[in-house]
Amino acid sequence: MQYEIKDIQLADKGQQRIDWARQSMGVLELIRKRFSKERPLDSIRISACLHVTAETANLVLALKEAGAHIRLAAANPLSTQDDVAAALIRFHEIPTFAIKGEDNATYLRHIQSILDWHPQIVMDDGADLICALHADRDLLISDVRGGTEETATGISRLRSMAQNGVLRFPIVSVNDADTKRLFDNRFGTGQSTLDGIIRATNHLLAGLDVVVAGYGWCGKGIADRAKGLGANVIVTEVDPVRALEALMDGHRVMSMDEAVKHGNVFITVTGNKTVIGREHFKRMKTGALLANAGHFDVEIDIPSLESEAVRVSSPRESVKEFQFADGRRLFLLADGRLVNLVAAEGHPAQVMDMSFANQALSVEYLKNYYMQLDRNVSAVPPAIDKEIARLKLESMGIQIDSLSREQEDYLNHW
Amino acid sequence: MQYEIKDIQLADKGQQRIDWARQSMGVLELIRKRFSKERPLDSIRISACLHVTAETANLVLALKEAGAHIRLAAANPLSTQDDVAAALIRFHEIPTFAIKGEDNATYLRHIQSILDWHPQIVMDDGADLICALHADRDLLISDVRGGTEETATGISRLRSMAQNGVLRFPIVSVNDADTKRLFDNRFGTGQSTLDGIIRATNHLLAGLDVVVAGYGWCGKGIADRAKGLGANVIVTEVDPVRALEALMDGHRVMSMDEAVKHGNVFITVTGNKTVIGREHFKRMKTGALLANAGHFDVEIDIPSLESEAVRVSSPRESVKEFQFADGRRLFLLADGRLVNLVAAEGHPAQVMDMSFANQALSVEYLKNYYMQLDRNVSAVPPAIDKEIARLKLESMGIQIDSLSREQEDYLNHW
Amino acid sequence: MQYEIKDIQLADKGQQRIDWARQSMGVLELIRKRFSKERPLDSIRISACLHVTAETANLVLALKEAGAHIRLAAANPLSTQDDVAAALIRFHEIPTFAIKGEDNATYLRHIQSILDWHPQIVMDDGADLICALHADRDLLISDVRGGTEETATGISRLRSMAQNGVLRFPIVSVNDADTKRLFDNRFGTGQSTLDGIIRATNHLLAGLDVVVAGYGWCGKGIADRAKGLGANVIVTEVDPVRALEALMDGHRVMSMDEAVKHGNVFITVTGNKTVIGREHFKRMKTGALLANAGHFDVEIDIPSLESEAVRVSSPRESVKEFQFADGRRLFLLADGRLVNLVAAEGHPAQVMDMSFANQALSVEYLKNYYMQLDRNVSAVPPAIDKEIARLKLESMGIQIDSLSREQEDYLNHW
Amino acid sequence: MQYEIKDIQLADKGQQRIDWARQSMGVLELIRKRFSKERPLDSIRISACLHVTAETANLVLALKEAGAHIRLAAANPLSTQDDVAAALIRFHEIPTFAIKGEDNATYLRHIQSILDWHPQIVMDDGADLICALHADRDLLISDVRGGTEETATGISRLRSMAQNGVLRFPIVSVNDADTKRLFDNRFGTGQSTLDGIIRATNHLLAGLDVVVAGYGWCGKGIADRAKGLGANVIVTEVDPVRALEALMDGHRVMSMDEAVKHGNVFITVTGNKTVIGREHFKRMKTGALLANAGHFDVEIDIPSLESEAVRVSSPRESVKEFQFADGRRLFLLADGRLVNLVAAEGHPAQVMDMSFANQALSVEYLKNYYMQLDRNVSAVPPAIDKEIARLKLESMGIQIDSLSREQEDYLNHW
Repeated sequence: MQYEIKDIQLADKGQQRIDWARQSMGVLELIRKRFSKERPLDSIRISACLHVTAETANLVLALKEAGAHIRLAAANPLSTQDDVAAALIRFHEIPTFAIKGEDNATYLRHIQSILDWHPQIVMDDGADLICALHADRDLLISDVRGGTEETATGISRLRSMAQNGVLRFPIVSVNDADTKRLFDNRFGTGQSTLDGIIRATNHLLAGLDVVVAGYGWCGKGIADRAKGLGANVIVTEVDPVRALEALMDGHRVMSMDEAVKHGNVFITVTGNKTVIGREHFKRMKTGALLANAGHFDVEIDIPSLESEAVRVSSPRESVKEFQFADGRRLFLLADGRLVNLVAAEGHPAQVMDMSFANQALSVEYLKNYYMQLDRNVSAVPPAIDKEIARLKLESMGIQIDSLSREQEDYLNHW
Repeated sequence: MQYEIKDIQLADKGQQRIDWARQSMGVLELIRKRFSKERPLDSIRISACLHVTAETANLVLALKEAGAHIRLAAANPLSTQDDVAAALIRFHEIPTFAIKGEDNATYLRHIQSILDWHPQIVMDDGADLICALHADRDLLISDVRGGTEETATGISRLRSMAQNGVLRFPIVSVNDADTKRLFDNRFGTGQSTLDGIIRATNHLLAGLDVVVAGYGWCGKGIADRAKGLGANVIVTEVDPVRALEALMDGHRVMSMDEAVKHGNVFITVTGNKTVIGREHFKRMKTGALLANAGHFDVEIDIPSLESEAVRVSSPRESVKEFQFADGRRLFLLADGRLVNLVAAEGHPAQVMDMSFANQALSVEYLKNYYMQLDRNVSAVPPAIDKEIARLKLESMGIQIDSLSREQEDYLNHW
Repeated sequence: MQYEIKDIQLADKGQQRIDWARQSMGVLELIRKRFSKERPLDSIRISACLHVTAETANLVLALKEAGAHIRLAAANPLSTQDDVAAALIRFHEIPTFAIKGEDNATYLRHIQSILDWHPQIVMDDGADLICALHADRDLLISDVRGGTEETATGISRLRSMAQNGVLRFPIVSVNDADTKRLFDNRFGTGQSTLDGIIRATNHLLAGLDVVVAGYGWCGKGIADRAKGLGANVIVTEVDPVRALEALMDGHRVMSMDEAVKHGNVFITVTGNKTVIGREHFKRMKTGALLANAGHFDVEIDIPSLESEAVRVSSPRESVKEFQFADGRRLFLLADGRLVNLVAAEGHPAQVMDMSFANQALSVEYLKNYYMQLDRNVSAVPPAIDKEIARLKLESMGIQIDSLSREQEDYLNHW
Repeated sequence: MQYEIKDIQLADKGQQRIDWARQSMGVLELIRKRFSKERPLDSIRISACLHVTAETANLVLALKEAGAHIRLAAANPLSTQDDVAAALIRFHEIPTFAIKGEDNATYLRHIQSILDWHPQIVMDDGADLICALHADRDLLISDVRGGTEETATGISRLRSMAQNGVLRFPIVSVNDADTKRLFDNRFGTGQSTLDGIIRATNHLLAGLDVVVAGYGWCGKGIADRAKGLGANVIVTEVDPVRALEALMDGHRVMSMDEAVKHGNVFITVTGNKTVIGREHFKRMKTGALLANAGHFDVEIDIPSLESEAVRVSSPRESVKEFQFADGRRLFLLADGRLVNLVAAEGHPAQVMDMSFANQALSVEYLKNYYMQLDRNVSAVPPAIDKEIARLKLESMGIQIDSLSREQEDYLNHW
């Protein structure tokens, strides 16, 4: 078996992590059991370019039990859990190509290694695998029935390829599933962002004014959790409909110019840049915490913060202190990068469970229906979305109602 | 001036109601002021078939100040506020055709009366006016530039006409605007449903198990308000994604079969029939309250309730008591009709403000853009939706952020 | 049988009200059943001066089933429900002396009528009965074993008598029981105050700034319910510990001087006077609602409001509009009197259930233990408080844990 | 200068921690500034036996600026932050006797070392210092004007000494201050307990059933935070009044026997033993988390858990997995010890700020009023409690109202 990992000796520790994650991945577990019985992916070759973590390992193992032959490479040079990679080799015979901290050349070589496999289905997280396939390995494409993509960024790239007519097989966008968004954005980001801020600072949030910039799904989740921890929430927005919704949800709404006078904690989650900038820093209260939960580290204008400060220090892990000429101090958390990933542990396994259940069922769907699909990006079918919600409820022992024949007729009579 | 109303002497009282409603209709007020300056509907003839209430009067007056000539008929024989109709005649010279309790022939005649007017734009609430126009007054249609429709039911009728190719002018569906839905469904229905239950019973909700059947926008609003009043909420659903959302929102989720063992209060808001039926009544706890917030009175199976009961009485206005052979008593509120309309006052004026702001701006939009519109039902343009949210914030003295040039560029660079 | 009521023909309607209230008075019902079996008050003569309402009727009937002979007079000339009085006569043979709207002389004569009875135990609500007994009917006192008092105001009068050495029998203060306070102040006043404001105005509370003046138990209850309805709450206080608690509970805290700039709704519940005064009215936003939930109508300075206004009108029942020279309008609800009593129905029967369960068990306690009690005001014994909580849980079908022998030993080993 | 610490080289790191904590200790900072100006403890000798942490350092430095001469020893052999101890020596010249992990003999010797100092005031956390003073150093007592005690356990010991007539100077019980309880119990324990559970497991709490055993101040705080994180809360209690309050607060209430069928997470905070025992483990759902937030590790019956399990492992730091013969797995967090201390960082500095502000002002109070105080344990005077709340509000820039002369008269006229 081919593979390239850090150290096979780490396998025991990795298996422990895989087992721990499994406890919280009840939906994938139900899917794995069915897969194991039905073998819907028997002998299908899959190449997966995903973050090599304990949660991903559980996805890969479910696909393996479905009968698939699967190879795995890292989707990012920094995200690999080396012990998990070792366990995948030693205990599960999954050819894995991933070393935490690998250089860019190695990263790209690993992607090629799993393409050598002549995949029939590809799974991607950021679209590096699918782009490499289109760019360098033209001859392999005829075998490929379709692919899945996990992230918004990857979907943007693939949509652009489809619009330009160069995408050569159908893609299912896992990112757009309701069951993913609900868990990822509202509940996952909501809890883990506050968790990151508390771990970074050990501050008590009750009684503080927490400013949330952006009231999309993530912003809603964060605002709701901050309120639940006893904070009074201020929302800033550029979209008046969202601003109004924040207001009706009981939060205060104002411009950032005004909010800087009140805030004790600032959390940006807009997807835009310079949401908090030079003029804002000048008028913030001393002691304010600055955190970002948006994808890129450009929401807080860190260069301005650095140039305005007369003294910068690191009083605590994940905290950088900026002191100003007037004596005020501001605290930047996690260097303005995703505070839930840097200062806490990112999404709970329960969140990844929903996301990866979408991956697993989308692969099955591609295998069965690729003939009917265009060379385009399409959403996870609603039936799969519902099935995942149903499995989640089942995994928690919860039963819901179903429509009687009479009720179905009633609904259709219009 | 032509008109047909109950009693012109009621005008003073009606004007007082119109003024009171105006206090809470800040968005329409800002629109009225602009209309008054710009006169965008100068000399346009409008026929409006709407519920003749204080809130509607404010809409009509705003359109009048825009320069329109407008005639008004009732959209329902029972919903007319006779004093408001009188005030519209005496103080505002709006030809009005509406008498509370009018018989069906009169109702239909009133619709014809406002069509005699040769309208250029029609406004409807249930589509009776627009259907009459298509059915009986073919010759008038060539003048008509377009129409608006307020309700989901009306939109269904008009969509069906469009699909069959018989709709002869464009329709704007006010019902689908975000700013209407947010206020109407979540916040309007949420508060007024609980208000109706409290007025009907004077019960304390804290500490009770409140079962909400259906977790659409209305159900969410009701569940949220019930929780806010100290109840513990149980949600029943047939859609697993919604059920899961209810669970993640902190509510309990179970089948109605199970919920009947726990509930002290039941609220149906599903849009379906027989959501609570014969088998459920048999196992409910004595003292349970049954209320409906869905459009029709079929969600609670009242015939079964009546046939199972050994004794029926009316202990309190809007409350009917059903006693069973085993001694248990169930209380049906508002005869299973919309509890917020029957036992309370329906939507607050603030809610109608948003809805009617959509009406007013949709009329202006139709006047300007009818040439570009198909003979179909289209949504309120997002720009109008945003403008209304912006005006609502402005009317409350709230400022929000806007994108800098640099930020717009950043968003577009993908 | 002696009695003096409005109209015996109202008895059927009154009985219906009594039955309706009984549905919600599960604790008193359990007590009534035990009383009926054990007859703990056999042949005891009780004179009760209480508000003659459906809830009081249920208390009186429980005492009657305990074997007591009881006479009832009104505790306030305005609070009598004449139909309930009639039902007490016709169906239950309770000598009742109460006519809604009776003049003061009649009111006092009625109190004398129930004293003529030579009571052994007296029950009071405001201490008028007990004061009359001490002042005018000295000879009767030797028979009296003790009394109960429902209100804070009555307790103040009786404490003052005790301190001056003139109180001649022991008093149990129902007002101080935990189970009364919890229900009355936090949950009863909380819900009914918001209910009163909504009934008076039909305003939507979501998205508004609601200012609550005073953060005692009532203020907490009101603030919590306002937040639960989607408002953003501002608390004003004079006590820094309470102010801090409000802040930590997630509310905003500021001076009234500052709060008047923000508030859409103001609710006073401080027990003090002129909490909102002339200078405040001058700077409030137009459209603000002013409501009081404190005992007296002095918390909002109405004379100043009247003298500052240039025009006063009544746009809606329970609403008075004050227009100022600068065009702003403020709306005073319920003339500044208790908004939950005037504009809604006051405390739900569930709340009175707890209060009257304390009354019933306190009467039994007085009968058994008056020999051991001082001529002073004492609290409801904790054992009774706990028993009532236990009965409430039982009436709702809820079971809780009890200490094991081992656990009791553990707790006592310190 | 005498001292005994681990390593003076750690001083820089320790000073950084002291500075970080100071940011969050605004009340103590305001007191320090006044102390620095007024020098109210000039030349007073203080011996303090407290946990040697960054927060304590800030307390000690405030007392030093008040003019006191102060010596510090550890209140627990395990709680010392060695770097903070080093900073106190090097930068602040506080004689400190504390080494993390010191053996019991050293611990006791250190207490003697600070007694050698002939203290005039003693500060204690657990009463070891004060007991040693009474037991071994009789001759020193005549100098001692009084002492403070931080903990409930210490207060129990001292109350027992007072009752037996052996306590020889007055004690102020910091533990009973409102401002301490509010922060410590409700908000401090509330947030940090959930924080501990999340850090230990990285579980998503939204949608889970969280069982809180005990509804005292800590239990309330925990239940409130769990609800705020999207959980549905079940409360178990032995006291019916508390159980009823939990119910009215919107939680479910049931016996632990029933709760074990539902719970995903269990948190004990009763102060009792065996709250969750052998029979409960047998019926819990697989995957349940068991955490304790009560003082001692006896609330969860760990020996039963160990004897029932067929396999025990440690899948994650602070998590112990117990597998049963039937395949179910339960997860014990932090070995059943205080989960907020073991798996998170314990109380935020903001919480200790309130507690230590009470310490600082109680020392000043003892110095001024010891002549008037009995040899007994007394509460922190309400005036100090209020002053601390006032300072906390001031430190957050919040202004509240004060009574006008007219209002004070009104309150006093009863």
